[in-house]
Amino acid sequence: MPNMKTKQIDVNVDNNIVIINEKTLDNEKIKHSSYVKIRSKDKEVLCQVVATTSLIPEGYAGLTPKIISELKVKEEDVVNIFARKIPLSIEYVKKKRMGTIWTENQIRQIVNDICAGQYTDLEIGMFTLSQYFIGLTMDEIASLTKNMAEYGTTLQFGEPVYDKHSIGGVPGNKVSLLIVPIVAAAGLLIPKTSSRAITSPSGTADTMEVLAEVNFSADEILEIAPKVRGMLVWGGTLDLSPLDEIVIHKVERPLSIDPHSQMLASIFSKKISTGVDYLVLDMPTGTGTKMPTREDAINYAHEATELGRRLGIRVEAALSYGDQPVGRAIGPALEAKEALLTLEGKGSKSVLEKSIELAGILFEMAGLAPPTKGSELALKYIKSGKAKEKMEEIIGVQGGDPSIKPEDIPVGSKTQTIESPHDGYIVKLSNSAVKKIAFTAGAPRHKEAGVYLHKKIGEFVRKGEPLYTVYANSEGRLTDAVNVGANLRPYSIEGMIIQRISSGPRNQDIKE
Amino acid sequence: MPNMKTKQIDVNVDNNIVIINEKTLDNEKIKHSSYVKIRSKDKEVLCQVVATTSLIPEGYAGLTPKIISELKVKEEDVVNIFARKIPLSIEYVKKKRMGTIWTENQIRQIVNDICAGQYTDLEIGMFTLSQYFIGLTMDEIASLTKNMAEYGTTLQFGEPVYDKHSIGGVPGNKVSLLIVPIVAAAGLLIPKTSSRAITSPSGTADTMEVLAEVNFSADEILEIAPKVRGMLVWGGTLDLSPLDEIVIHKVERPLSIDPHSQMLASIFSKKISTGVDYLVLDMPTGTGTKMPTREDAINYAHEATELGRRLGIRVEAALSYGDQPVGRAIGPALEAKEALLTLEGKGSKSVLEKSIELAGILFEMAGLAPPTKGSELALKYIKSGKAKEKMEEIIGVQGGDPSIKPEDIPVGSKTQTIESPHDGYIVKLSNSAVKKIAFTAGAPRHKEAGVYLHKKIGEFVRKGEPLYTVYANSEGRLTDAVNVGANLRPYSIEGMIIQRISSGPRNQDIKE
Repeated sequence: MPNMKTKQIDVNVDNNIVIINEKTLDNEKIKHSSYVKIRSKDKEVLCQVVATTSLIPEGYAGLTPKIISELKVKEEDVVNIFARKIPLSIEYVKKKRMGTIWTENQIRQIVNDICAGQYTDLEIGMFTLSQYFIGLTMDEIASLTKNMAEYGTTLQFGEPVYDKHSIGGVPGNKVSLLIVPIVAAAGLLIPKTSSRAITSPSGTADTMEVLAEVNFSADEILEIAPKVRGMLVWGGTLDLSPLDEIVIHKVERPLSIDPHSQMLASIFSKKISTGVDYLVLDMPTGTGTKMPTREDAINYAHEATELGRRLGIRVEAALSYGDQPVGRAIGPALEAKEALLTLEGKGSKSVLEKSIELAGILFEMAGLAPPTKGSELALKYIKSGKAKEKMEEIIGVQGGDPSIKPEDIPVGSKTQTIESPHDGYIVKLSNSAVKKIAFTAGAPRHKEAGVYLHKKIGEFVRKGEPLYTVYANSEGRLTDAVNVGANLRPYSIEGMIIQRISSGPRNQDIKE
Repeated sequence: MPNMKTKQIDVNVDNNIVIINEKTLDNEKIKHSSYVKIRSKDKEVLCQVVATTSLIPEGYAGLTPKIISELKVKEEDVVNIFARKIPLSIEYVKKKRMGTIWTENQIRQIVNDICAGQYTDLEIGMFTLSQYFIGLTMDEIASLTKNMAEYGTTLQFGEPVYDKHSIGGVPGNKVSLLIVPIVAAAGLLIPKTSSRAITSPSGTADTMEVLAEVNFSADEILEIAPKVRGMLVWGGTLDLSPLDEIVIHKVERPLSIDPHSQMLASIFSKKISTGVDYLVLDMPTGTGTKMPTREDAINYAHEATELGRRLGIRVEAALSYGDQPVGRAIGPALEAKEALLTLEGKGSKSVLEKSIELAGILFEMAGLAPPTKGSELALKYIKSGKAKEKMEEIIGVQGGDPSIKPEDIPVGSKTQTIESPHDGYIVKLSNSAVKKIAFTAGAPRHKEAGVYLHKKIGEFVRKGEPLYTVYANSEGRLTDAVNVGANLRPYSIEGMIIQRISSGPRNQDIKE
């Protein structure tokens, strides 16, 4: 267990490493590439040993800024380095191979070990892939969900909490910016935590950030939300489900996988952490979404409602139309604008319809409206202007300008509008193509970037009429995005040629 | 696709990284932590991007010595950096989840992509874990084996090749040092490639290296072996099955897993690469081995013989007694000494018996002896001294001293002998405890270190008689190893207390 002085090494490596001089490794009998624990007072991190002959002097532990900050040490502080013990819970993960069902206690150990940084990245991979390749029973998912929530921050409001969650996958889905004020206007408590964009051009938190602050501490939320009845905040800083963050970052995103059981545990662990009692689950279904077929979606919906039952959360799942973007605006500023317009009754019909349907389900669950009548009640809150007032109030308490008008919201100054090459009905509008155009234009990082859809499926377009407009902050990004659009062609118009096959080098297939 | 000058950075990181200044990353729109390809002339490697603000100047690619050498560049050379395309074959790996059977063509693409460095470490993990969690059919294993062999070096002798392979797991298994000279003395060609120790205190290559060189090129083996009829070389430098090396190094060893299908493919791909036609497969079976139960071993034996049939290799599997070490010597020098002694007819009876049984099976397969009579013929080669002469010849052509005597072999100068605390019969001798004592003494890195067993299962020992002797090169290692022995107690003697449970802090359980 040698002690070493620390030295910061200016590399921003994702995985945990400690750089040690080869002579020190020899002297201390530490193996190159092995895993060691580094301890300073009560902090401890697992690092892989990397050898150097010159970069770090003998007797020093070269640490990245990330490790320096995790250990709360400064240069020349002394840390203790010792051999890693492989956590016992890894044996449980391995036993999944034989179809072993994890006990509640085993799951707790796995969750705690991963969250405490006891697993290497590859071992976290094995845990996630055991779910991907083998899967979990409903008992195991419930247990995983509870333990994931227990490890994180918990918000307790002491009264029933309502929530809306979308499993995502469809662009333009800004309905939370309407549902939260509608529901809060009725007096129900809906302190909504959202993610930033993961695979979409704008997450709810990104869109809301156009109008107000979204970073709030747990204490601030517990103080503000009960008074205003609704908030729209970013869940990322709250540490609601640490295991979920680790698994997404280390495994799911790099491998582009989203194991079923982990997806359910991810959603519901955060619902437990935020004290949710009633949840409406929006499940966009269709080509290019997470639920391509209705059968997938129905199975998933039944699992989600059953998991909710076991966890004491009443869930209603709503399969929504996901074959094209929701509304016409894609990208943070454009979506915020469309949401405000729709709250004023002047925006998108599809955004309005979807919002009052989902808010209506929460009203029915709360007993504020009889079955099937919830959406009528929700619409009243729009028509009376009460939802808009509530949104202004929410924007205000979240540090934004409550008097902001849709037309005040700045959008990309560089624009180009793409016109229809034909007359005809729109028969297809590709989610993935629209997303890629918006990404290329700069969304979600550039709030003002995005795409506005002038036409949607079923509408008639004349040759030369606008199909969509691309918004960007720079000519370069605008050109790139327009080119992506020209290549991917998001719209299919009845009567148009869908695909051209040529023997030349430029094959202009429509890529889905 | 920016060009950058290279700068060597003195860190010996296992995974491939490229360190780039944050300003350069911003300018070139390269994402931190993303994977990029680095190309120089015809060489190309996949690296993960690591950001720095100061360690590497703008416009430079900071490369580790490993990458510098793989790309065959020197400092200030210009390399081209471009975005990585995720190989299509990763989709096949993912589809294993749905029980998809890989086609021959898909397996070829997976093998080629992994060997060509197209997979990230995590993706190689997913490939290996898909086998671990789901498994492969015999068709897939055969196809994987063939493609793994095809990617590597191939030795073609133009005549029938005989081989012996042990799946390992039992310490002291030096029988190849007898089988090769016996079989070669009979005129059969047995150019045996072996591994160094992976989990044992001495691999065959480590043991042979005490007597002669073991590093030979493919050309040297093709030239020498047909003349002498036998060789004992290290397979590590021959690149016989590149995928196997990658998977062992990146996944199997770090996770301590050895998926069934990959174990078979690993063995047989190297047999194809070395042109083996007849193989006797030694399968030590018993506590602490890779085949703890006879049922496991029998299933595995049938799979191995069937895989051999499909690949055109005649295989006979022999389940061998693996409940205790083979012979009495453990550790490279001690084992080499015991092997030579046994060739002279003066060594261990169990080493002799096992060697002539396995060599005998090869004689029967070759038609040199009728069924069940192979071992008698093998014994004749020992008794006539022809096996010993052949071993001297092999040692000679491999650059060793052909006249070496067992007593010439240096063994650890620091020794301690552990005596029996009781009278009684030896009822158990733990493989894993013996291995750990030998490791702690320094084996296999210190060739002279190891353990000599004075007593084996079934023998009677009187109180105060020697049980085992530990050999080491330094007092420190000797003491450590003796302490490990005192704690693990490798011997169980009838009538002795097996376990003491106390409420105090030192619970001296026997750890298996």
